[in-house]
Amino acid sequence: MGCPAGIGPEIILSFFAGAKKSSGIQAVVLGDIKVLEKCGNDLKLPAPCVPWLPGSPVPSKGIPVVQLSALQPEDITWGYPNKATGIAMAHYIEEGVKLTQQGLIQGIATCPISKSSLNEAGYHFPGHTEMLASLTKTANFAMMMAGNKLRVTLVTIHRPLREVADALTIDAIYNMIHTTHQALSTDFAINEPKIAVAALNPHGGENQLFGNEEELIIGPAIERAKTDNICVSGPYPPDTVFFKAASGAFDAVVCMYHDQGLIPFKLLHFEDGVNITLGMPIVRTSVDHGTAYDIAGKGLASHRSLEEAVNLADAISRNRSSYCKQGSL
Amino acid sequence: MGCPAGIGPEIILSFFAGAKKSSGIQAVVLGDIKVLEKCGNDLKLPAPCVPWLPGSPVPSKGIPVVQLSALQPEDITWGYPNKATGIAMAHYIEEGVKLTQQGLIQGIATCPISKSSLNEAGYHFPGHTEMLASLTKTANFAMMMAGNKLRVTLVTIHRPLREVADALTIDAIYNMIHTTHQALSTDFAINEPKIAVAALNPHGGENQLFGNEEELIIGPAIERAKTDNICVSGPYPPDTVFFKAASGAFDAVVCMYHDQGLIPFKLLHFEDGVNITLGMPIVRTSVDHGTAYDIAGKGLASHRSLEEAVNLADAISRNRSSYCKQGSL
Repeated sequence: MGCPAGIGPEIILSFFAGAKKSSGIQAVVLGDIKVLEKCGNDLKLPAPCVPWLPGSPVPSKGIPVVQLSALQPEDITWGYPNKATGIAMAHYIEEGVKLTQQGLIQGIATCPISKSSLNEAGYHFPGHTEMLASLTKTANFAMMMAGNKLRVTLVTIHRPLREVADALTIDAIYNMIHTTHQALSTDFAINEPKIAVAALNPHGGENQLFGNEEELIIGPAIERAKTDNICVSGPYPPDTVFFKAASGAFDAVVCMYHDQGLIPFKLLHFEDGVNITLGMPIVRTSVDHGTAYDIAGKGLASHRSLEEAVNLADAISRNRSSYCKQGSL
Repeated sequence: MGCPAGIGPEIILSFFAGAKKSSGIQAVVLGDIKVLEKCGNDLKLPAPCVPWLPGSPVPSKGIPVVQLSALQPEDITWGYPNKATGIAMAHYIEEGVKLTQQGLIQGIATCPISKSSLNEAGYHFPGHTEMLASLTKTANFAMMMAGNKLRVTLVTIHRPLREVADALTIDAIYNMIHTTHQALSTDFAINEPKIAVAALNPHGGENQLFGNEEELIIGPAIERAKTDNICVSGPYPPDTVFFKAASGAFDAVVCMYHDQGLIPFKLLHFEDGVNITLGMPIVRTSVDHGTAYDIAGKGLASHRSLEEAVNLADAISRNRSSYCKQGSL
């Protein structure tokens, strides 16, 4: 459910009221019935919540909720998280990991959290994914942004643009090509996935006229990955590779920096993009937006990203499971 | 016509055979009838060329051509420019400027040229636009990429990514906001155009966590432009501003570097994008692609960008003319 004071509760209600019905996916909420009912009341949305006990059959009607906090309606002011909502939110995450590890649920699709209230609640992580990584004892993880037209992974993420070029290494790019290849193979069940690597400089440096990272760093990383029989190519001029990928030429684009990947991704998948955590032993997808406190409780938020995150978590857990059964892992 | 050995001739023929007919625009070719006829012959495209004398009425049928070179079919091998094609190509550009300055044509939409054959022909310019700037004695010019969904201008262009941050100055950004505002007002006839300025760093630096150019350079440039009564705002997180602009919130986005603007632009306008030269005393648009020697003479090239470049040159010349008549210049 994410932060109880953000848009999580309302997108859950509208997801269950609409898209969920026809999907056939067994989805349960890790959250709080009273918060969902308050949300339904405030926004005139149906909130037919029923308590669900992990391990019991998932009812086909209503919204099955694992009751994990005891927030009262008066604890919730939409858009304003507090210590109580922070503690509740952290508990949803801990339980999500535990239930997945126990095999009682097959994966989690997370709603957005507030980093500051996570800290206020006593959980000192820079973000959601780092907390999940700690709970699952995962040292190396990565993010993939996925939509039906485009998938991107990022070699560097939250860095000033001026530091990007110096942060690139052959190893980091090579590892991200591998991580991307693994995810496309196991999570997306793509046979021999085709991976493009974006250049760093305009026109790919145009024969070192505008930079030489293509020749010194990116090219060698691609060559090394090719010797592992990965179908990878590039470095491609950044201004055309995303059009080609979106047209079907590639299954994913490995990007050198945040905005290189996120600008085209959000242009194509502003509402329905999903963030997938790669490298974790549990299946975890996430909506591709924040808590949106400015519009929380107003009924303006779209559940499209949550819908896609749930669908993708379902697909990934099935794909991983059959990949394992094939004995390929 | 651009380089006679590139895709210029074939996109001209397919433009005249198709889109041109219904547009009502009076378009003439500055080029060479024999090259167009050879192209028509090789690609089974209609090439009903008729010589046109500047100043005479433009015929409504056929392809009016100002005959500016005397290339022979045997001089042309598609995809392979030579000194003769380079000299011819340069001459088309010179005549285009001269005829526009004389008022015999109202603007030029240029097909792609080869920089190396321009040099081989004895014209030592880094590119097409620089040659046009020299011929029109223009000291300051800029490029705008325009499509029906998105328009972008670039504060820095052909630079290694690692040098972008240091190349940004308050003056350069302020000037580009002004140039963009002027173009939207006069060339696109937009009343009180809304301009967005993109940030440099991911999330716009997130309160200086990932860079401070937003606070030190971009913000002050925006504030200065606001005092000139320009409707400008930002700096906006780069990964969402283009979606907003394409959705109609802004008339143009001022971008900090080449790929920041070109990645979203080419994603939306891969085939129909137009490059406009701002700051020049004559109207000049250009196709948004190169000579494409690898596919020249194969009938694979699309005339969509040429079509849009001609339409836009026509619109800009009309808009500038009525802007002048209103006495606003």
